[in-house]
Amino acid sequence: MEIPKHLEIIFLGDELLLGIRSNGHLVFLGDQLTRHGLPIRRTQEIRDEESEIRTAFLSAWERSDILITTGGLGPTTDDLTRETIADALGRSLVFNEEQEAELRNFFAIRGRDVTPNNLRQCYLVDGAERLINPNGTAPGQWLEVDGKLLIMLPGPAHEMKPMFDEEVLPRLVKKGLALERPAYLQLRTIGVGESYLQTRLEPIFDRYAGQLSIAYCAHNGFVDMRLRPVNERLEWSRLEEIGNECASELGDGFLGYGEPDVAEWILRKLRSLNSKLAVAESCTGGLLASRFTDVPGASKSFAGGLVCYQNEVKEALLNVPGCLLEQHGAVSAECAVAMATGVAERLEADYALAVTGFAGPEGGEEPPGTIYLGYHSPVGVWSYKLIHPGQRAAVKQRAVNSALDFIYRKLKKYAAYDLLESMRC
Amino acid sequence: MEIPKHLEIIFLGDELLLGIRSNGHLVFLGDQLTRHGLPIRRTQEIRDEESEIRTAFLSAWERSDILITTGGLGPTTDDLTRETIADALGRSLVFNEEQEAELRNFFAIRGRDVTPNNLRQCYLVDGAERLINPNGTAPGQWLEVDGKLLIMLPGPAHEMKPMFDEEVLPRLVKKGLALERPAYLQLRTIGVGESYLQTRLEPIFDRYAGQLSIAYCAHNGFVDMRLRPVNERLEWSRLEEIGNECASELGDGFLGYGEPDVAEWILRKLRSLNSKLAVAESCTGGLLASRFTDVPGASKSFAGGLVCYQNEVKEALLNVPGCLLEQHGAVSAECAVAMATGVAERLEADYALAVTGFAGPEGGEEPPGTIYLGYHSPVGVWSYKLIHPGQRAAVKQRAVNSALDFIYRKLKKYAAYDLLESMRC
Repeated sequence: MEIPKHLEIIFLGDELLLGIRSNGHLVFLGDQLTRHGLPIRRTQEIRDEESEIRTAFLSAWERSDILITTGGLGPTTDDLTRETIADALGRSLVFNEEQEAELRNFFAIRGRDVTPNNLRQCYLVDGAERLINPNGTAPGQWLEVDGKLLIMLPGPAHEMKPMFDEEVLPRLVKKGLALERPAYLQLRTIGVGESYLQTRLEPIFDRYAGQLSIAYCAHNGFVDMRLRPVNERLEWSRLEEIGNECASELGDGFLGYGEPDVAEWILRKLRSLNSKLAVAESCTGGLLASRFTDVPGASKSFAGGLVCYQNEVKEALLNVPGCLLEQHGAVSAECAVAMATGVAERLEADYALAVTGFAGPEGGEEPPGTIYLGYHSPVGVWSYKLIHPGQRAAVKQRAVNSALDFIYRKLKKYAAYDLLESMRC
Repeated sequence: MEIPKHLEIIFLGDELLLGIRSNGHLVFLGDQLTRHGLPIRRTQEIRDEESEIRTAFLSAWERSDILITTGGLGPTTDDLTRETIADALGRSLVFNEEQEAELRNFFAIRGRDVTPNNLRQCYLVDGAERLINPNGTAPGQWLEVDGKLLIMLPGPAHEMKPMFDEEVLPRLVKKGLALERPAYLQLRTIGVGESYLQTRLEPIFDRYAGQLSIAYCAHNGFVDMRLRPVNERLEWSRLEEIGNECASELGDGFLGYGEPDVAEWILRKLRSLNSKLAVAESCTGGLLASRFTDVPGASKSFAGGLVCYQNEVKEALLNVPGCLLEQHGAVSAECAVAMATGVAERLEADYALAVTGFAGPEGGEEPPGTIYLGYHSPVGVWSYKLIHPGQRAAVKQRAVNSALDFIYRKLKKYAAYDLLESMRC
């Protein structure tokens, strides 16, 4: 494998330095470029000022084989990228008539007039190829100079991202600078820690020492594991075989390849069982229901949810017995199970999840961060206690992750049980 | 006012360049530094590699009066910031015994042993002041060299942020490099656009032409407006007067100074009215309830919520008449009102919000993004139609924002009405 090119990115925009919004472009481009085997070497965020653009550009250009810029291609006087970079390269700007025609058309179909400053966007750096922008008026630019490559992209995300996917990536692949196929195989695991993964999979990875690099990334109850060949001796099909070995070793801990969503997996599984799910939430306050309803078509297997913050509501809507609440309290294993059963009955669902706990900042008989999950299913009920100390929003999030993890594992187990049953027949 | 110092930040971490997580440190530090009158000039994200750290550090150090780094202060072999920067500055590392004592104590109370590599974290660059880290084992470092200032902070957010607030900012203020008081006055507005704000407030701002700079930032249904004096002639008390003028001009559109949360405002208001709120959600699927339950102490005025995805559930739990659903459909003004009334009755709440609509990707009789809000209150019921085309998650989010905006405005009006009534008595 060739030594990767030195690639840098300069993001223009005062708002990035003011902490007003996070640099989503970096996440998008970092992910896309890494995936296609062209890792980023260094990035900068700079202000929309001519002197800043000039100095940042010149030093990055000297170091780089490939340099990408985002922002500053618009029609207004503080859009300075095009002019400043052309000047720094000692090149003139050339008017592009195709761009003018597209621009006039863009405005015509919107019933607006083209103003003179819009026409600034028709200029390309001498020698640059135009990157089409169907979502805005500023074209991108692709310029090859002295064996180096400069790519200028517009700032708005809904213009930059499609332009990268449709105009930039295919050109990079065609020039042999990026891989068409992902550079790594990603396995998503659930409910297991990084160190468990390392220990458990060590015997497999040891057989490929020196041939395979493994990167872990933990987020939201998942750990993503990326397997990447360190040289070309390891073929993609072999990588898939290793992935399958890891998957079978991990069992329930393996969620899928790529970026599968666990809520989607659960709803799909329930649909295949011709079953419905309901949820009852106290401390997570609707967040668990919201995760399920984020899945398109959720209504086919998600019956609904109840957010019962108060004891009277738990009694009235979920049929949680008043004496149970008195004896054990609302934050208890008994209450969690009663909530799950109650919501399943109310919403005529076969499966139900319930969450009750202290999200904080205040606790009760137990410290904030104490959570009880309740689970109702055709084969029985369970409760499970968790302790997730932290900020209120983080506690809610972790409780939701744990609830998803819990039902996922239960449903995986049933699947195996069903299989056993069917084999017996 | 002095010319601001040239401040740069270098963020270390391979994961930033891989698109695995967004650079939240930049948002936090950008916001904090801007607020305290010390804007960032330029930032970089670099890899955890010695040669990268060295070259990025040396060029940034040459340009900067103040340079901040985050990351690479930990105990492992890929934590290279401390050693590399000391070397680049031609300084030795000095063992700090206070840090050793704290480190041993940190491990002792957790029942863990100190390993030799942990002791690497006790070394400071010669001449550096130690910045205490109560949340981890790596201290920060504050080094003044030749009239320049170098600040090294640890990478984990829960260590870096408190260290910035408690150790760094007070020192910057003490040295006259940052303002103790915010550099601007922030007004949060709700439910009004940027251009409306500009037009509406122009007469006020025109009177301060050349003295006042105004920045707008739109997010999540709010527009934040920052008023900043461009020179010292404009005193803080005058700025507050201007803020009050804007607030009274905007009426209901003014939510508060700083960063008030509208859900918190609504629950506080309801509590003062000795009233409770319930919600019924279809397409937002729990997200509205979750916004309210994000507020600590929500249970005092939030009765609960029902997520009713299916018509049968709307009938069974919310008493929405079956014939109404047949006649108008579930996505209708009539259904929204019936849902609001139904949930108010069920949960014995005085106020209720309901949301029904097509979140997408599929629609029904109306296109995806069509939303009906329903509102129930002691003085009547309302319904309100919205069209928010977009991705499913964005449609949900906007519908929630609109629902919050809607009840906020209603409650503001009642407050005025109550006042009128009480004046009449």
